Amino acid sequence: MNAKKPLILVTNDDGITAPGIRALIEVATTFGDVVVVAPDAPQSAMGHAITINDTIYCNSILIDKDAPQKEYSCSGTPVDCVKIAINELLDRKPDLCLSGVNHGSNSSINVIYSGTMSAAVEAGTVGIPSIGFSLLDYSLEADFEPAKKYIKLMIEKCLAQGLPSGVVLNVNIPKLPQEKIKGVKVCRQADAYWQEKFDKRTSPLGRDYYWLTGEFINKDKGEDTDEWALANGYVSVVPVQFDLTAHHAIKDINTWDL
Amino acid sequence: MNAKKPLILVTNDDGITAPGIRALIEVATTFGDVVVVAPDAPQSAMGHAITINDTIYCNSILIDKDAPQKEYSCSGTPVDCVKIAINELLDRKPDLCLSGVNHGSNSSINVIYSGTMSAAVEAGTVGIPSIGFSLLDYSLEADFEPAKKYIKLMIEKCLAQGLPSGVVLNVNIPKLPQEKIKGVKVCRQADAYWQEKFDKRTSPLGRDYYWLTGEFINKDKGEDTDEWALANGYVSVVPVQFDLTAHHAIKDINTWDL
Repeated sequence: MNAKKPLILVTNDDGITAPGIRALIEVATTFGDVVVVAPDAPQSAMGHAITINDTIYCNSILIDKDAPQKEYSCSGTPVDCVKIAINELLDRKPDLCLSGVNHGSNSSINVIYSGTMSAAVEAGTVGIPSIGFSLLDYSLEADFEPAKKYIKLMIEKCLAQGLPSGVVLNVNIPKLPQEKIKGVKVCRQADAYWQEKFDKRTSPLGRDYYWLTGEFINKDKGEDTDEWALANGYVSVVPVQFDLTAHHAIKDINTWDL
Repeated sequence: MNAKKPLILVTNDDGITAPGIRALIEVATTFGDVVVVAPDAPQSAMGHAITINDTIYCNSILIDKDAPQKEYSCSGTPVDCVKIAINELLDRKPDLCLSGVNHGSNSSINVIYSGTMSAAVEAGTVGIPSIGFSLLDYSLEADFEPAKKYIKLMIEKCLAQGLPSGVVLNVNIPKLPQEKIKGVKVCRQADAYWQEKFDKRTSPLGRDYYWLTGEFINKDKGEDTDEWALANGYVSVVPVQFDLTAHHAIKDINTWDL
């Protein structure tokens, strides 16, 4: 590899063959040397799970013939992929980690469930500038073309400016044709939650089981949120941190006289 | 159930038969009506994973004969347990959610990997006051007696005072005899990370595989952190939030001229 080019680690949670990661790789290879380490199967909604009680397999594979990137498929979670890439597969620390493009939104509270965003956060914990990308379209036939312009923009800016310490970016892209996307808004995470319903069924052997289904509830009327930006035709960029301390609450809890 | 007593949901990530959750249930039943919904097998380091591509089983079980609590064992993750408890099993919203007692530390960056803390956070996202407890002892024979005094104290205070909106508590208890524990410190999350090593082995069939192993690196010399408190004989209490927005970084990123 050419040491002058940035080394870019690419991962996702939809699995190494998903169209979203293929779009991300295509843009990433125009910026540097790309190494892909991604799950060998879908790992959506895995959050920050890691594999501690089981073995991890990791195989060098060739998906795009004649493509410039190296690729590894990994049996672990998205966070495992980042850990094994950094500590075992790569010969130097990457200059950038890109995760996605996720098939579906990771805005608002979805950031805590998302394997895509957790992979980006994991790279951030060891000081690697990192961006997670999501397109608001779950379809395998989703059109990633309009997203590429914004992926390129974010990589360019991130490589040029770096990121504040302890911060990674959560970029969500609306499902719109390019000419309808109004631009980019830097936002806060909207205050929202999932109201779940469990679909209860009975197996052919008579045993009850459940499917998780839910409804996304946005309580937040703010116009500075990711939900507002996306609903109004903007790409949302939320700076995300992994210091989870509610610093403002320390004073409150100290009045408890513990 | 007696409507005057608080309804307390108890869960964990070590599984419903772990000694840690038994200790927590014992204390919780002195405060209210307890319903236990916990994983049917260990789910450590599952983070905020949820089960979206598979079925979930949930069975009413009896572990402690003549015990006052109701118990359900669940095939899902710790976060699944909280979701199914709130939305399917309980007839009203719990007044408190308790998670743990985890076998091993969830201080500092461990909060993002922890199934125990993610379960507590999940309850927090739907407005339920919530506390995760961890003891700094991985052993199945760990002594939970010294911890009980502090679990009782935290439940008492939390039921009396409530918690600020959007905040849950991460309580870690040092592995010390009761007389050596100096008290409780309200702290911030220490700035630390995991430096991983992968133990590479070859299967009997000749296929390479890995085990994740790692070293915890605390970069943070602050005396207001959870790591400092625990190393100095205190119980650490960190208020944790699930608004991951790095609010201080919004201004920075806005200078990127996106």
